[in-house]
Amino acid sequence: MKKYPVTEIFGPTVQGEGEHQGKPAYFIRFGGCDYRCEWCDTPHAVLPQAVRAAERLDAFEIVERLRSLPPGPGWVVITGGNPALHELGALVNALQEHNYKVSVETQGSRWKEWLRDCDSICVSPKPPSSGMSTNKTEQSLSDFIKEAQGTNYFLKIVVFDHADYEWAKKIHKGYFFAPMYLSAGNDAGKTVGRPDRVDNRGTREVVNDLLERARWLTNRVMVDSAMMDVQVQAQYHVLMWGNEIGH
Amino acid sequence: MKKYPVTEIFGPTVQGEGEHQGKPAYFIRFGGCDYRCEWCDTPHAVLPQAVRAAERLDAFEIVERLRSLPPGPGWVVITGGNPALHELGALVNALQEHNYKVSVETQGSRWKEWLRDCDSICVSPKPPSSGMSTNKTEQSLSDFIKEAQGTNYFLKIVVFDHADYEWAKKIHKGYFFAPMYLSAGNDAGKTVGRPDRVDNRGTREVVNDLLERARWLTNRVMVDSAMMDVQVQAQYHVLMWGNEIGH
Repeated sequence: MKKYPVTEIFGPTVQGEGEHQGKPAYFIRFGGCDYRCEWCDTPHAVLPQAVRAAERLDAFEIVERLRSLPPGPGWVVITGGNPALHELGALVNALQEHNYKVSVETQGSRWKEWLRDCDSICVSPKPPSSGMSTNKTEQSLSDFIKEAQGTNYFLKIVVFDHADYEWAKKIHKGYFFAPMYLSAGNDAGKTVGRPDRVDNRGTREVVNDLLERARWLTNRVMVDSAMMDVQVQAQYHVLMWGNEIGH
Repeated sequence: MKKYPVTEIFGPTVQGEGEHQGKPAYFIRFGGCDYRCEWCDTPHAVLPQAVRAAERLDAFEIVERLRSLPPGPGWVVITGGNPALHELGALVNALQEHNYKVSVETQGSRWKEWLRDCDSICVSPKPPSSGMSTNKTEQSLSDFIKEAQGTNYFLKIVVFDHADYEWAKKIHKGYFFAPMYLSAGNDAGKTVGRPDRVDNRGTREVVNDLLERARWLTNRVMVDSAMMDVQVQAQYHVLMWGNEIGH
């Protein structure tokens, strides 16, 4: 059986963003990413030395690992990094055979046929503040969304600033038929897992900072006729537990 | 044209709970309620002297009032009190003719035919901590849900304590086919709009208290196999603006 670089398997916790925000879930995080976002909050699944150090597990071992966690959630979230770099069809089928529902989180840069088998796809294209090329992102998103027709997908865009907001508006206009969630940017991503950058804030401060940006975002969205069907959010897991890894 | 007791028309703001949490919306609050919940956070739409003092407006005047507010939201939330005490069919149709989508919030104690015309129904039966009879609530909810089949409805239950949690679980089991949201109880409801009870907490404290209860609720739900498809929430408008009336 094929082995994959797995950086974390954890839960029970809840889904933090998007259509299933607040639903109990386990998470499987795969190492490897085709992006290098400035504010990435999971560098331990992105940076090459971390991915090299990740455990190698096959589909059977992953399911076993999940089943050894405390019981509860019916959903499993496959995330990364970008899990769409891997061939995970056998894993998705194995999870569904064990009666889990499967969500996947990806930036929408690369399509894989196994995504069709997932119960939910969160497509999260990266805005200008990520430092990635929005031109390339828009092009690959267009290809991805064409393939995703007929699946149960939604869009989620992280918004840190004015340029991100305007870009999210452009994407919403282009894909008006897709449910759209805007998530207030979490500054913590700039330090989490980076030994060279230290975040001295306690949970309350992290929460207050996130809510401050969510207020800014909400105040804009709610008077913007172009945004009347989007849903604004703040990462629920961060509101609950701050930026602890493993939640 | 028939006139209704209207206690507030406000917005732009966002929907605070349920399936449309975080979506921009205007709110129309109707006076009058068949319940007297211990922790009601809108006594100004419930207590008889407040309802008597409420402005009387017809459907045309309500739409005019809405259109005079700053533009933005595409949704209008009809709430109360219990708006299902009134005959609001003409208003719902007028709003939809003006291209608004209409959400309604009701405890599910009384069915009205006009509810079928709404774009979304939030059914929010009241748990034991409300002080209302759960026997009566369960009976009327059963009748309500039968009528609601074929409409776009979901269940939302506020949870303050252990007894509320167990009751929510029972309701979820009985109506497993309905999307279910659990909202962490907001203590502020015990004081808002009640001159005899003063809340000296600032917004940060209100937010922290709400998040504390949301943590308790989330920690229970996420390890409870009976709750695997519910979504836990904290009122988004409270996270944004505390307990200010008019948000």
